[in-house]
Amino acid sequence: MSNYHPLTEAEAIEIARSISGIFEQEGELLSREIGDGNLNLVFHVSQPSSGRSLIVKQALPYAKVVGESWPLTLDRARIESEALMIEERLAPGLVPKVYHTDNELALTIMEDLSSHKIMRQGLIEGGIYPQFAEDISDFLARTLFFTSDLGMNQQEKKLLVRSFANPELCKITEELIFDHPYTNADTNSFDSHLQADAEQLWSDATLHFEVALLREKFLTHAQALLHGDLHTGSIFITPESTKVIDPEFAYFGPMGFDIGAVLANLLLHYASQEHWSAEVSARQERRQYLLETVRRIWVSFESKFRALWDGHGTDRIFGTAGYQDDYMQRLLQDTFGFTGAKMVRRIVGLAHVADIDRIPNDETRAKAQRLALSIGTALIKQNRQATSIDQLIDIAETANNTRV
Amino acid sequence: MSNYHPLTEAEAIEIARSISGIFEQEGELLSREIGDGNLNLVFHVSQPSSGRSLIVKQALPYAKVVGESWPLTLDRARIESEALMIEERLAPGLVPKVYHTDNELALTIMEDLSSHKIMRQGLIEGGIYPQFAEDISDFLARTLFFTSDLGMNQQEKKLLVRSFANPELCKITEELIFDHPYTNADTNSFDSHLQADAEQLWSDATLHFEVALLREKFLTHAQALLHGDLHTGSIFITPESTKVIDPEFAYFGPMGFDIGAVLANLLLHYASQEHWSAEVSARQERRQYLLETVRRIWVSFESKFRALWDGHGTDRIFGTAGYQDDYMQRLLQDTFGFTGAKMVRRIVGLAHVADIDRIPNDETRAKAQRLALSIGTALIKQNRQATSIDQLIDIAETANNTRV
Repeated sequence: MSNYHPLTEAEAIEIARSISGIFEQEGELLSREIGDGNLNLVFHVSQPSSGRSLIVKQALPYAKVVGESWPLTLDRARIESEALMIEERLAPGLVPKVYHTDNELALTIMEDLSSHKIMRQGLIEGGIYPQFAEDISDFLARTLFFTSDLGMNQQEKKLLVRSFANPELCKITEELIFDHPYTNADTNSFDSHLQADAEQLWSDATLHFEVALLREKFLTHAQALLHGDLHTGSIFITPESTKVIDPEFAYFGPMGFDIGAVLANLLLHYASQEHWSAEVSARQERRQYLLETVRRIWVSFESKFRALWDGHGTDRIFGTAGYQDDYMQRLLQDTFGFTGAKMVRRIVGLAHVADIDRIPNDETRAKAQRLALSIGTALIKQNRQATSIDQLIDIAETANNTRV
Repeated sequence: MSNYHPLTEAEAIEIARSISGIFEQEGELLSREIGDGNLNLVFHVSQPSSGRSLIVKQALPYAKVVGESWPLTLDRARIESEALMIEERLAPGLVPKVYHTDNELALTIMEDLSSHKIMRQGLIEGGIYPQFAEDISDFLARTLFFTSDLGMNQQEKKLLVRSFANPELCKITEELIFDHPYTNADTNSFDSHLQADAEQLWSDATLHFEVALLREKFLTHAQALLHGDLHTGSIFITPESTKVIDPEFAYFGPMGFDIGAVLANLLLHYASQEHWSAEVSARQERRQYLLETVRRIWVSFESKFRALWDGHGTDRIFGTAGYQDDYMQRLLQDTFGFTGAKMVRRIVGLAHVADIDRIPNDETRAKAQRLALSIGTALIKQNRQATSIDQLIDIAETANNTRV
């Protein structure tokens, strides 16, 4: 790592110019650092004369969250770029193209997606994304199937597991998702009006048991190469296009963790509707749209995953009678559990979501928070009984209809 | 690997002499190659004048089985020596001490255990090993607990998973244990009188479903660092001492796989008693001894594992109410399943056990083989209903009492 140093804008321009096939030879390049500076430098390098641009992303050797700073491995840049290249190969067009990587400088140089919007922001603005369920179910089905023992040579998979060990970033997940929200941890952060709700989480033995099982799956179940952080802030979107970004948490874990991340963030947005859709009828319509998207994602995912299994299973054992049905049911159950865990942590844990935190009215925000907690804890508690995605929709609707 | 070459006896002596603290400076060293030449060279190097000795084990770059030869990674020597050193640290005195390793030459230089006997041979000779259940349950409880997320820092475990990826040796297990016995594979090998029994295995859909689930656990469940091949031929024994050898199959998998290997080989020996114990009363006594050993191994393992959990669990989540009981039950169920799988493969698959193959009388051997298949398939089919080790004992006794 001797050559590592944070790039200046001038250096970012120099490196960007060396990438062949992007910029015209003549014509000034401009660089603008657009990262938040907490984890990465992100340079947007553009050439006004040609209208061409690209992104130079550089990992910083630390993470800053809420004023705290701690060291964080630069190896995450390698993991991110390798994961992006695998995802591009398996799900073409659904991630930014990688033009160049430099592990020593912890750099990934890639396609500029400025024409897209971060999905979380798009949803907050009331965006409708008719292509999203189709695209994200493609992404999930293809990346998860083809990096699992189902769709990949089992020995090659073991070598891939080795290169995505990723302990430091997994530790963040293990603590912030499966541990801290369920105890009075220093890292927790929540509105004071949620004190009693948080204490309820800390003392709920049934919940703790299920979360312990979910954590065990995360720790031990090397099922497929996960994105590892697939919330709506890791998705660039337009009504016609979906691009999944930032797979620096990539590692081999339970498939339901990625599917659950997507569903959880749609349900968190669902829980925030009382604010973002002021009219009752619009709110109702918006909620329907979100739940229908949740349902379509699972249904499409399942159908695509089963088709891949039927067509591309690596060996005869995957044709065993009853095996696919059993596998899909366990996958659905994991999805319920991880969806719930990813909702709960966004309300009482360290990192929140703008969909809910930006609700200015305390009472409205509290309603959204409690609705999210209610859906999240119900999904966690019922995960091992799940047999249909309809149960998840029911849980969301019932929680919404019966809340005080 | 440029310096790799199979050692001569003279070279083995030269290397042995360079190990400090073993031999006296004066005094001739003798070398005797005692390996079977199929996978490894094993030099027994001794110094008659001092009575001292050691073992120089060198991996060969191929495996030979039944006349066939195929390339096999030399990296297994590194895996074996690293596993031995971890096991010695966690379960002191229960593996041979490693004096020196050389990854380039694929060498492990270690303690000579000539004072011990291979346990399979000892059992065939009617040996009684009163210390065995205590020792092997120690070995299992301590190596499995302290290399799992329960007893080891979860981030360090991920790094250890990386260094024990071991794809080539896992492939052997995946094919010979979970695949080939259940289909008409070229590698299968069984007496012609077992043709109908084998065909029954190949067409039993219930069995295939359970074996598919067991294989999935082996492929994806990175629970603890396994020995990976813990049959009675991998155990050196005396009535007072137990030494586990040959962990070249070591990798992170489901704990029940190692426990099951031990129990399966005791039950295979149980199935062979009609030959080895000629007198009915001696046979009855021997069977009782074997089943009692099986029971003691599980009961001691469970009690030791629970005590380690209570005293050394890495974090508060392992104190979650009900978690330990649930975990132990799942571990017992896995143990049933893997015990069964390891019995079946020894009757119809490529590699057999001397306990049964050396029975000269066809009819007696056929009885032993069918008893082993009957116990094995029952354990596989009932694995997910197991709640007590008594059920395993019952299955073995019932199969013995009701066989034709």
